Amino acid sequence: MGTGALGGFYGARLCRAGCDVHFLLHSDFEHVRQHGLVVDSKDGDFVLPRVQAYRDVRDMPRCDVVAVALKATNNHLLPSLLPPVLAEGGVVLLMQNGLGGEEEAARAAPGHTVLAGLCFLCSNRVGPGHICHSDYGAVRFAQYAANRAVAGVSDSMRAIGQDFAAAGIEVDLLEDLLLARWQKLVWNVPISGLSVVLNADTRELMADPHTRDLAEDIMREVVAGARSCGRHIDDSFVRKMLDMTVAMKPYRASLKVDFDDHRPMEVEAIYGNPLRAAQQAGAHMPLVETLYRQLKFLDARNCGMRA
Amino acid sequence: MGTGALGGFYGARLCRAGCDVHFLLHSDFEHVRQHGLVVDSKDGDFVLPRVQAYRDVRDMPRCDVVAVALKATNNHLLPSLLPPVLAEGGVVLLMQNGLGGEEEAARAAPGHTVLAGLCFLCSNRVGPGHICHSDYGAVRFAQYAANRAVAGVSDSMRAIGQDFAAAGIEVDLLEDLLLARWQKLVWNVPISGLSVVLNADTRELMADPHTRDLAEDIMREVVAGARSCGRHIDDSFVRKMLDMTVAMKPYRASLKVDFDDHRPMEVEAIYGNPLRAAQQAGAHMPLVETLYRQLKFLDARNCGMRA
Repeated sequence: MGTGALGGFYGARLCRAGCDVHFLLHSDFEHVRQHGLVVDSKDGDFVLPRVQAYRDVRDMPRCDVVAVALKATNNHLLPSLLPPVLAEGGVVLLMQNGLGGEEEAARAAPGHTVLAGLCFLCSNRVGPGHICHSDYGAVRFAQYAANRAVAGVSDSMRAIGQDFAAAGIEVDLLEDLLLARWQKLVWNVPISGLSVVLNADTRELMADPHTRDLAEDIMREVVAGARSCGRHIDDSFVRKMLDMTVAMKPYRASLKVDFDDHRPMEVEAIYGNPLRAAQQAGAHMPLVETLYRQLKFLDARNCGMRA
Repeated sequence: MGTGALGGFYGARLCRAGCDVHFLLHSDFEHVRQHGLVVDSKDGDFVLPRVQAYRDVRDMPRCDVVAVALKATNNHLLPSLLPPVLAEGGVVLLMQNGLGGEEEAARAAPGHTVLAGLCFLCSNRVGPGHICHSDYGAVRFAQYAANRAVAGVSDSMRAIGQDFAAAGIEVDLLEDLLLARWQKLVWNVPISGLSVVLNADTRELMADPHTRDLAEDIMREVVAGARSCGRHIDDSFVRKMLDMTVAMKPYRASLKVDFDDHRPMEVEAIYGNPLRAAQQAGAHMPLVETLYRQLKFLDARNCGMRA
């Protein structure tokens, strides 16, 4: 569901590897139905001239795995999107940023297993059905369990992981979803937010000592937030994230891409939900809250400016 | 010294009231020497076709009062600017934003009294020698004393205050400079900084609940910073500042005007110096520090973009 920079990339790779993939599309439906998908990738370009494309879930077959690659800002649609396409015993695979999406998916698909796929991917949709994959690509799988429990590695995780691995994707199977989510936030919260507020890419943010220090302090706050939710992230992880950001090609985070294109930003998923989770656990994240408020202001004005 | 939106306005008003005013100018010198000053003011427009204009302090007579209306970013010039123009027993009147300017003036003019004039003025330089005064105008005078001491109301304050009052300016004589400086920062720190970072005017910042709350939290942090320096600002003052900001005509703070014109911002005076003063007193201002770092980043990039 959602055939953009992320869903289109992984879907096309699975499809090319022989999986039976059905693509749900919105604005690109007509184009993709006629011309298929084009993937320019650092791992090798390829074209799928014909794919199984749908505009409406009611036209789709029931599926064993429903990969949700919508923006988290569209999660209010899950109750109407998921039930019609989930086969009995079918699994929801949520491939989104931020915190709280699995709860929404679990509520929308009661009785179904919910997995998360945390994607470390630099890709962009450069035109209808046209994806440019510039860097990385690994997916870390973890299973959702209610009440912040650790679900461990399940058979469906293994099976889906094998499909992705067969498609040439680097795969990791994790015991603890919540830990993985918070780890990803350590990078995402400071870098995505500052890139929007300051209109800057990763290289600029790391080159200036003030924003580098600010990013580091925000990372440490996120680590403290994780701790309040019972998840330990080592101090060395912050160092590792900073070094990685310095080393990476200048990159425009997906939050920034959405902002630049006047689309709603995933502010609640990446900022609001972690803030509330930490707050409920008695932890205070003043720097994250500052970014949250700045982004809420910019998001409201930005969406008002949409054509 | 400095005949812009602020120095030009007060200088012209004093001049019109009969004071012997000598204007130091930089870029507008040639124009003002030939055409004088034009003031469009909500208190009544007026023109001074001829004023005593100078480009170099070495051409100026020695003065009883040297009003410094330069941006704080130019305070490194004070040691060369002040000594040639100060008469024996002459007084420095610093009309600037932020913290720390009086220390710099006192070092640059040893043995001379340093006063501050805290200006509550909405005015803009709309062209060479042309000032538009849109709102407010009061000046609060206070005397500088070393080591954060309270200097009380002095005779030179009274004398200068009388000249301003005779020029139709609302005047206030204050006992405690440091308290007045921190009070002014309560408004200036959140509103000026957020207006730059979010490219917003006062009305937009107050209309959005997230930025309104953020501004309030930053105000409270500044109040705590003042407390760490031994100055008590009542909680009701924060309320008053918020109400005033909601009520005022949409206004572009001077920091924002400088940023928009690609001039250096007074980031150290308004943010760096208060941060360091509070830090030395053991107080932490994480929200102010976040704004400071964001502004440092923007200032460095912005000045790099100057023509």
